[in-house]
Amino acid sequence: MSMKIAVMPGDGIGTEIVAEAVRVLNLLELPLEMETALVGGAAYEAHGHPLPESTLKLAQESDAILFGAVGDWKYDKLDRPLRPEQAILGLRKALGLFANFRPALCYEQLTHASSLKPELVAGLDILIIRELTGDIYFGQPRGRRIATDGHFPGAEEAFDTMRYSKPEIERIAHVAFQAARKRNKKVTSVDKANVLETFQFWKDVVTEVHKEYPDVELEHMYVDNAAMQLVKAPKKFDVLFTGNMFGDILSDEAAMLTGSIGMLPSASLNAKGQGLYEPSHGSAPDIAGKGIANPLATILSAAMMLRFSLQQPEAADRIESAVRAVLAAGYRTADIWSEGTQKVSTREMGDAVVAAI
Amino acid sequence: MSMKIAVMPGDGIGTEIVAEAVRVLNLLELPLEMETALVGGAAYEAHGHPLPESTLKLAQESDAILFGAVGDWKYDKLDRPLRPEQAILGLRKALGLFANFRPALCYEQLTHASSLKPELVAGLDILIIRELTGDIYFGQPRGRRIATDGHFPGAEEAFDTMRYSKPEIERIAHVAFQAARKRNKKVTSVDKANVLETFQFWKDVVTEVHKEYPDVELEHMYVDNAAMQLVKAPKKFDVLFTGNMFGDILSDEAAMLTGSIGMLPSASLNAKGQGLYEPSHGSAPDIAGKGIANPLATILSAAMMLRFSLQQPEAADRIESAVRAVLAAGYRTADIWSEGTQKVSTREMGDAVVAAI
Ligand SMILES: CC(C)[C@H](C(=O)O)[C@@H](O)C(=O)O
Ligand SMILES: CC(C)[C@H](C(=O)O)[C@@H](O)C(=O)O
Repeated sequence: MSMKIAVMPGDGIGTEIVAEAVRVLNLLELPLEMETALVGGAAYEAHGHPLPESTLKLAQESDAILFGAVGDWKYDKLDRPLRPEQAILGLRKALGLFANFRPALCYEQLTHASSLKPELVAGLDILIIRELTGDIYFGQPRGRRIATDGHFPGAEEAFDTMRYSKPEIERIAHVAFQAARKRNKKVTSVDKANVLETFQFWKDVVTEVHKEYPDVELEHMYVDNAAMQLVKAPKKFDVLFTGNMFGDILSDEAAMLTGSIGMLPSASLNAKGQGLYEPSHGSAPDIAGKGIANPLATILSAAMMLRFSLQQPEAADRIESAVRAVLAAGYRTADIWSEGTQKVSTREMGDAVVAAI
Repeated sequence: MSMKIAVMPGDGIGTEIVAEAVRVLNLLELPLEMETALVGGAAYEAHGHPLPESTLKLAQESDAILFGAVGDWKYDKLDRPLRPEQAILGLRKALGLFANFRPALCYEQLTHASSLKPELVAGLDILIIRELTGDIYFGQPRGRRIATDGHFPGAEEAFDTMRYSKPEIERIAHVAFQAARKRNKKVTSVDKANVLETFQFWKDVVTEVHKEYPDVELEHMYVDNAAMQLVKAPKKFDVLFTGNMFGDILSDEAAMLTGSIGMLPSASLNAKGQGLYEPSHGSAPDIAGKGIANPLATILSAAMMLRFSLQQPEAADRIESAVRAVLAAGYRTADIWSEGTQKVSTREMGDAVVAAI
């Protein structure tokens, strides 16, 4: 039985980095059927929409999506529904990809690349789990209108709805507690229960679900405090989980703490185990086409895909070991290069991983 | 004509640190009329409410409020409307304190206390301006209900409303551009225009207001990117301004970057120039009553009060110079102490500032 992968390079450096991940996958001698589709700005150029019907259909029929990145300044003037990032929101929604895994890992050889002092990040290994299909991202109603109350009744205003239902919170809480069981059995649930009804409810439901996981330690933390503690003592966290909006902010903050965001993969899963796998960094239009982007986050995303959606943990291990080996051998793309290591291109980094496998 | 100050020590270390700020104010030989009131948990204990009528009335009749901090774990079980932090939300709302100033400043002598490498924070001087009376903090409707749509129709859900009206955005944008004119003429407006209607509107209105300030450079940045850039290169910011919710998160992140949150004051102003002045740190119940808390953030808040609400810039300068002098002389409370400096108590730090004035 073959496993179907939708390959979506997208925009900017997307094509370059995904190409290397595909080469690595091809080495593994697994029955992988890969089909490529346009997404984001590239799809808009070709079909007038960032997430064309055909791309969505391919995604739905696949076991997993290997995604590059979308976006470019040149699409900033388009109407919102036509902008590249709508593709990613559309895929999350259509496939119900509610569980986003964002590891923030500091590789031994790259510790010095962090903004933080080495002792604060050496060995850092946090797993951020972000709810990805609820919250203020998708809540209705939203739009513009004339205010009827508030500080300026009669004025034009815009509004959005934050919301979480009990089953939405329950399912992501289960994901977090189960992930913690495979790690250090410590979960930090991040909320803003002191201000928001939505997150008081979040806290209540998480506390309830926690009763099924007495072996896992649960801590509640306000989002403003979490933003501080990540800077102050990131290693105190193990699994940090939160809603879509707070997760957007904290997962990026945590990624940047490592100093090597070009190394960080991500996975977004639905209830059936289908997943979208993409690097944590963006499309970097400024360096697109130059062959200097770091393909490792995408290659590691392919490893996560093998582990989470395709049930190939050995193959995932092989890729991850190969990445550690190329780092140990001193190969570095420009973003992680430092004195005494060997600067390589996107392609050469792919070659090194291929050779190590 | 005397100036009236409402003194609200609050909970935890609040009483200790405010006492030192009051001593400093008393030195200045200004016609200051100070009246003390209970707030937060202390007010709840005495009057059954964190913001009693009498406290609110005093606040409204005063030119400025000197505020310590509120909160303690022991009130966590109270109904939300009775919890200490409702006092601060209530004061912001009742007085219309829409403009929150949160400087993130790294003092030369304390650079090493930062989590970040010294070269990234040495000389750091960012001003974060947070809108403080709008957004999802106060938007109606909010509450719990049965979902009629979304992923789980029929399930229990909680919800909140994010909103900003045009005049609300305009007035905070003016505050930010005017503040930038007195600094380095660079403003970063932080939004999430790629996802939220509220912040697409925010971006549109800010762009419009900017036309009145052609001498100030305006940059728009997504909140997730701002959370990263603060870690990566904080000195690239000058004035960063944003809404209430994002500002809550980013101002705390930025404060922690300095490594010396015990040094950071804040001001919250309304359209009439009335203001609430408080340290950026919290009530720290764990060290309350021990006489070891750092009073400098509160003393510097008193300086901001003299400058912003009481039109006494020379007096503000005197306090700020005195604080710099005690740092230069090597006095340190426990939170900022390091080898080779002199550890002092809250009271001794107050003495040192008093002596320096
Ligand atoms: C592009 C944008 C809509 C998206 C988000 O906000 O979720 C991105 O920031 C991310 O984190 O994947
Ligand atoms: C206590 C809480 C309601 C408050 C807020 O969220 O605004 C605090 O975090 C702050 O930043 O002053």
